[in-house]
Amino acid sequence: MNIKEAISKLYELQSKLSAYNHAMSLIYYDGATVAPKKTARNRAHALAVLSEETYKITTSDETVALLEFLDSHRDELEEKEQRIVYLAIRDIKEMKKIPIEEYIAYQELLVEAGDTWHKAKENSDFELFRPVLEQIFEFNKKIAAYCAPEVHPYDYWLDKYEKGLTIEKCDEFFATLKDRIVPLIKRIGKAEQVDDSCIHGDFDEASQEKFSLELMKIMGIDLGICGLGTTEHPFTTSIGSHHDVRITTHYQRDNFASSMFSVIHEGGHALYDMNSDDEYAYTFLDGGVSMGIHESQSRFYENLLGRSEAYVNYVFPKVCECFPEQMKGYTANDLYKAINLVTPSLIRTESDEVTYCLHVMVRYELEKRVMSGELEVKDLATEWNKLYLEYLGVEVPCDREGVLQDSHWSGGSVGYFPSYALGSAYGAHLLHKMRESVDVEKCLAEGNFNPINEWNREHIWKYGCLKNPDELLRNALGEEFDPMHFIKYLEEKYSKIYNI
Amino acid sequence: MNIKEAISKLYELQSKLSAYNHAMSLIYYDGATVAPKKTARNRAHALAVLSEETYKITTSDETVALLEFLDSHRDELEEKEQRIVYLAIRDIKEMKKIPIEEYIAYQELLVEAGDTWHKAKENSDFELFRPVLEQIFEFNKKIAAYCAPEVHPYDYWLDKYEKGLTIEKCDEFFATLKDRIVPLIKRIGKAEQVDDSCIHGDFDEASQEKFSLELMKIMGIDLGICGLGTTEHPFTTSIGSHHDVRITTHYQRDNFASSMFSVIHEGGHALYDMNSDDEYAYTFLDGGVSMGIHESQSRFYENLLGRSEAYVNYVFPKVCECFPEQMKGYTANDLYKAINLVTPSLIRTESDEVTYCLHVMVRYELEKRVMSGELEVKDLATEWNKLYLEYLGVEVPCDREGVLQDSHWSGGSVGYFPSYALGSAYGAHLLHKMRESVDVEKCLAEGNFNPINEWNREHIWKYGCLKNPDELLRNALGEEFDPMHFIKYLEEKYSKIYNI
Repeated sequence: MNIKEAISKLYELQSKLSAYNHAMSLIYYDGATVAPKKTARNRAHALAVLSEETYKITTSDETVALLEFLDSHRDELEEKEQRIVYLAIRDIKEMKKIPIEEYIAYQELLVEAGDTWHKAKENSDFELFRPVLEQIFEFNKKIAAYCAPEVHPYDYWLDKYEKGLTIEKCDEFFATLKDRIVPLIKRIGKAEQVDDSCIHGDFDEASQEKFSLELMKIMGIDLGICGLGTTEHPFTTSIGSHHDVRITTHYQRDNFASSMFSVIHEGGHALYDMNSDDEYAYTFLDGGVSMGIHESQSRFYENLLGRSEAYVNYVFPKVCECFPEQMKGYTANDLYKAINLVTPSLIRTESDEVTYCLHVMVRYELEKRVMSGELEVKDLATEWNKLYLEYLGVEVPCDREGVLQDSHWSGGSVGYFPSYALGSAYGAHLLHKMRESVDVEKCLAEGNFNPINEWNREHIWKYGCLKNPDELLRNALGEEFDPMHFIKYLEEKYSKIYNI
Repeated sequence: MNIKEAISKLYELQSKLSAYNHAMSLIYYDGATVAPKKTARNRAHALAVLSEETYKITTSDETVALLEFLDSHRDELEEKEQRIVYLAIRDIKEMKKIPIEEYIAYQELLVEAGDTWHKAKENSDFELFRPVLEQIFEFNKKIAAYCAPEVHPYDYWLDKYEKGLTIEKCDEFFATLKDRIVPLIKRIGKAEQVDDSCIHGDFDEASQEKFSLELMKIMGIDLGICGLGTTEHPFTTSIGSHHDVRITTHYQRDNFASSMFSVIHEGGHALYDMNSDDEYAYTFLDGGVSMGIHESQSRFYENLLGRSEAYVNYVFPKVCECFPEQMKGYTANDLYKAINLVTPSLIRTESDEVTYCLHVMVRYELEKRVMSGELEVKDLATEWNKLYLEYLGVEVPCDREGVLQDSHWSGGSVGYFPSYALGSAYGAHLLHKMRESVDVEKCLAEGNFNPINEWNREHIWKYGCLKNPDELLRNALGEEFDPMHFIKYLEEKYSKIYNI
């Protein structure tokens, strides 16, 4: 085999695996959106086979020999291929540490878990979900033990979602936030409260959907490539490559802002996924590099842009067009204040920017303890409620609005949540940097997202998985990441809104 | 290898292939329903890989050796496994005759063809579709030449969709129908025409969708297993097994009966697919055995039941519930007559039971001539219009309502259409037989489909692909199939409606 042949085989391999990814992402998306309700087992069957096939292709002797050959000729490869080989070897080494039967059993469990979680949430019954969740945490511990027996199992998973992240770093990061955010929340609590009545009312689903598509267009999302679906819990997924991306939302009849900001959030994920360099399609470099960077983009669009005064002023007439009756008598400023109401609450995805990180901290704390063996899954609901009272001062009335609210654990994601808070903070620093060359306020005031998207494309999106998240971020920021930008952003914005 | 191991390997193989089928059916369904519009190429990529993988698994030395081993021990196998081995060997022998590059190229072509056909139909421009359609017919000829060089290429495809069907049999069948149906249409044409104003009006999509789900429930379709989607052209597909089936419909704002009968038609297909014996799931025996039998079920529900006086009397109050304003002043009898209006028209899927076979004959005639090399694809639109004038006496105003109306050719199906007419005729004979033991009128009058479905399950559905269509039919009918039952049914029903 010569280098040229080997590189060609490498691209064939990636192309093949992307077709399996296409199938599996679509089966997942279908299950969450339009699939009939009693078909989870049927999907589990297909996913089990396809993930076994993926596993076999990825870890086959032929694949390993190919990658080792290429790795031994690393210096003759371009940066792109070097990175592909590096990522593939890293993943295969890990995959080979997990026995295939366990890998398949876990995939099967996750399909059923999604179904069980849905039912448990509907019935607000944690006990229904508990046995499956116990298995999921057990699998997470086992996989960590197989792959990185030398580190704390939670460190393994934190690093998995955000290369380089550890309990130590999280503890420090969250402590910094807590130090300044808790006092800020207290000051806001004592100030005169804002009126959020304009986002409440009766908003039919068809109008909300129309509005969602309008929001996507304003963001510069090509609707010919990015679809919009409806699910219990909003999410974004690529289907096989960045040439087909789907976002979902959840419509609340009595609050149009809920779906509005879900759409902008998921739209941020979608823009990141859709804008990998075109030559990365059907390769391991396609799509976002980490959950932290992903959330930096989604929360950037949702909060830093979507909840800004300039954007709200621009979008308000469109809100009035979609909901003329409901918006009667309200101003853009009423809407701006309503969507920035700060109040300790129960549901993370509907919480404000300021208290949001406390919601994340609850989950971080609980995951850390379960993964450390200090807390049992059976006690998760009780502990959840205790921490919500301690951190946010709210009483959790039922599991549906408590421990069952997020889909993450049912999808096997343990260690993902910290990246939401981290992403928020990355975003604020990125905005600070972007302002050096882009007049962000002017863009938002005019509803022109092009210069903003262009900056993100040039500094973040186009790289796909070419760089590790820390390198990507340093490269974009021109300096080390500093969470103080986020804290200052929150303090300035909310001091003004609340006159404190 | 012993027999027991070999049988176990056989089931593993089928289970694996059903997962690939799951993925490919879902990719197709997604593309036709919710996928963003500019993602066809991305789907083509995944489908190309997955069909290549399917091809490789199916034709691998390992698979062939397994099947040959089992075939050489045929006498030791149960009927079920004998049939599986027979079907698999038959398909593999054929697959191996088609060069893999051509097989893959054809799959890729079909994905793009769907897209091109949509655009061409939207623009009513046959020339846009022509180059792709030429390739499709070429592929069909080539595949026939590879697989059965000894027979007429159209005979090959007729047999593919309905085992045993030939040009000779079709010519005879269609001649019999023509002999009696053309005079019937003439007599109806001279009679007093019925008023179909009650099915026309303004019917919003949401109400039509609600009504569709109600119709499915009445038919005894489990909505937890069978989903309903919206597409340009209605169809039914299983996703991986009979445990997940999807039907689609197309809503016409000005005519609720169009979608109503699409739903009942596709619902008939779905019932057949969903009711294979449970132990056939994830095997080659799962689902319907042929297009003719499939159409015998779909057209049975659509016409023999759905357009009957007893059913219309039962369903009329439900129509009024869904469309109270539009139905004001109309009676069940008005609806019965409206949905049985006989009039030579342009669109096959919206045509009445009596003229329907003439629509099919146009397509049969054209396919036969193209496959024989007597007609070129470039002349199809002109010939289509000529035959519509000759057979049905109608002028085709544009390609959208002419040669571009059906999706079949864009999906590669050449030789499928005759099975619609054949299925209609099978259905009439089956109904004749069913009446010996089931009081069909009473069931319909009470909206109780259970005894009807039970008869179909016992005589048709449960067998899946266990028997060849002719054997299955003979077994269900207790005698040879006779198209005169269909002719008599039409003559009796329409003589009464039209007082002739």
